[in-house]
Amino acid sequence: MKCKVAYDGTFFNGFQVQPKGRTIQAEIETGLRKLHKGKKVKIFASGRTDTFVHAKGQIFHFDTDLEIPIERWHNALQTVLPGDIEVREISEAHQEFHARYDVVSKEYRYFVQRGRRMDVFRRHYRYFYPYQLSVENMREAAKYLIGTHDFTSFCSAKTDKEDKVRTIYSIDILEKEDELEFRLIGDGFLRNMVRILVGTLLEIGRGRRRAEDISKVLDSRDRERAGHTAPGHGLFLWEVNYDN
Amino acid sequence: MKCKVAYDGTFFNGFQVQPKGRTIQAEIETGLRKLHKGKKVKIFASGRTDTFVHAKGQIFHFDTDLEIPIERWHNALQTVLPGDIEVREISEAHQEFHARYDVVSKEYRYFVQRGRRMDVFRRHYRYFYPYQLSVENMREAAKYLIGTHDFTSFCSAKTDKEDKVRTIYSIDILEKEDELEFRLIGDGFLRNMVRILVGTLLEIGRGRRRAEDISKVLDSRDRERAGHTAPGHGLFLWEVNYDN
Repeated sequence: MKCKVAYDGTFFNGFQVQPKGRTIQAEIETGLRKLHKGKKVKIFASGRTDTFVHAKGQIFHFDTDLEIPIERWHNALQTVLPGDIEVREISEAHQEFHARYDVVSKEYRYFVQRGRRMDVFRRHYRYFYPYQLSVENMREAAKYLIGTHDFTSFCSAKTDKEDKVRTIYSIDILEKEDELEFRLIGDGFLRNMVRILVGTLLEIGRGRRRAEDISKVLDSRDRERAGHTAPGHGLFLWEVNYDN
Repeated sequence: MKCKVAYDGTFFNGFQVQPKGRTIQAEIETGLRKLHKGKKVKIFASGRTDTFVHAKGQIFHFDTDLEIPIERWHNALQTVLPGDIEVREISEAHQEFHARYDVVSKEYRYFVQRGRRMDVFRRHYRYFYPYQLSVENMREAAKYLIGTHDFTSFCSAKTDKEDKVRTIYSIDILEKEDELEFRLIGDGFLRNMVRILVGTLLEIGRGRRRAEDISKVLDSRDRERAGHTAPGHGLFLWEVNYDN
């Protein structure tokens, strides 16, 4: 089965099962186990998300021998999940389908709240950044990031991936009332990569760095040269795309 | 001092100090006590709000002998408050000002999420009501509520108020994408009154009651005759108005 879920990451210790703390994977696997009368079911997601990171369209797959009619699956699964995980779509997957290896592209969105005071109602969903920003300079800087690059400088040192080359197809920066919205589409993103990209762009917007420096930062392959890691709670895994 | 605060009611047991559970009043009084070096400070709010109910513009007053310059008060108070209470405004009040007795009118807003599936990101801020609704019928019914009436039928039996006569100045019902927004302005609202009004209007919208029945329900002075109490988490105390 192939399933799309949304989740509010606020009260999770990230996606992946861990010894301590509540995780999205563990909640879903616990729910599936209930449906399968105690039998353990493992899910495979398009990728992990960090603590506090949200998803509008995370994708995972799993195998099942349950004989539930396809139109009943949605409600059956929602019933065994907690209120902060929402089943968006569920369908039968091709036998070969793999939610992680078959990813063609991913879209992440990062939201920033500007202005003088943090809005209590957005505190878990927006990064409050109360500084004057030049959106023009950020857009200029973003151009240097588009394309295929070695993103070692924009990746947590804790990553377990050897290959740090990724392709970013687009970075759009939208202004909406008192918010900034970053839309990043790429073939894949390394650990903390979106958050470090956004943190660096914000520092450029604030005038602490110059847009042209991006090339040097990329070339250095040194995490220390890039900007701060923007907090997880402003980040949403928005969409995962596959062939067909 | 007169202070306007916003709060996210999700993790509060309502406004008023209680033996058990976290309350907005207790958090603010604890914060003020810190500022006053351990001296107890009591606050007086425009009124209580229930468990899970939010506020965009709750008003309270308190007396202080602190000599903080007025422009520093905002940050001083915010610093001693938790992240789900936001200081919006603070100013010196007239010696006679009373946040509760001087209220001229109050505005509450109630938000409903329609559609087939509850959105996880709005679950603490919107009442999910997945039924077909006639907004026209609800607007028709609202007309019967405008004006000065005895609202015994629309008030929790637990109220401690003798006088159940209140004046509603306006009820507007707005449709915005998949949401309904109720805006109610009146000289005051009894316990659970907005929630019972909204619950009853929704039942009319759904076709379970007729708009004209409102008059009979008002006349009956019987809580049993009105509709259900819509849940607290869709309700926002929006604004409190005083003379000047």
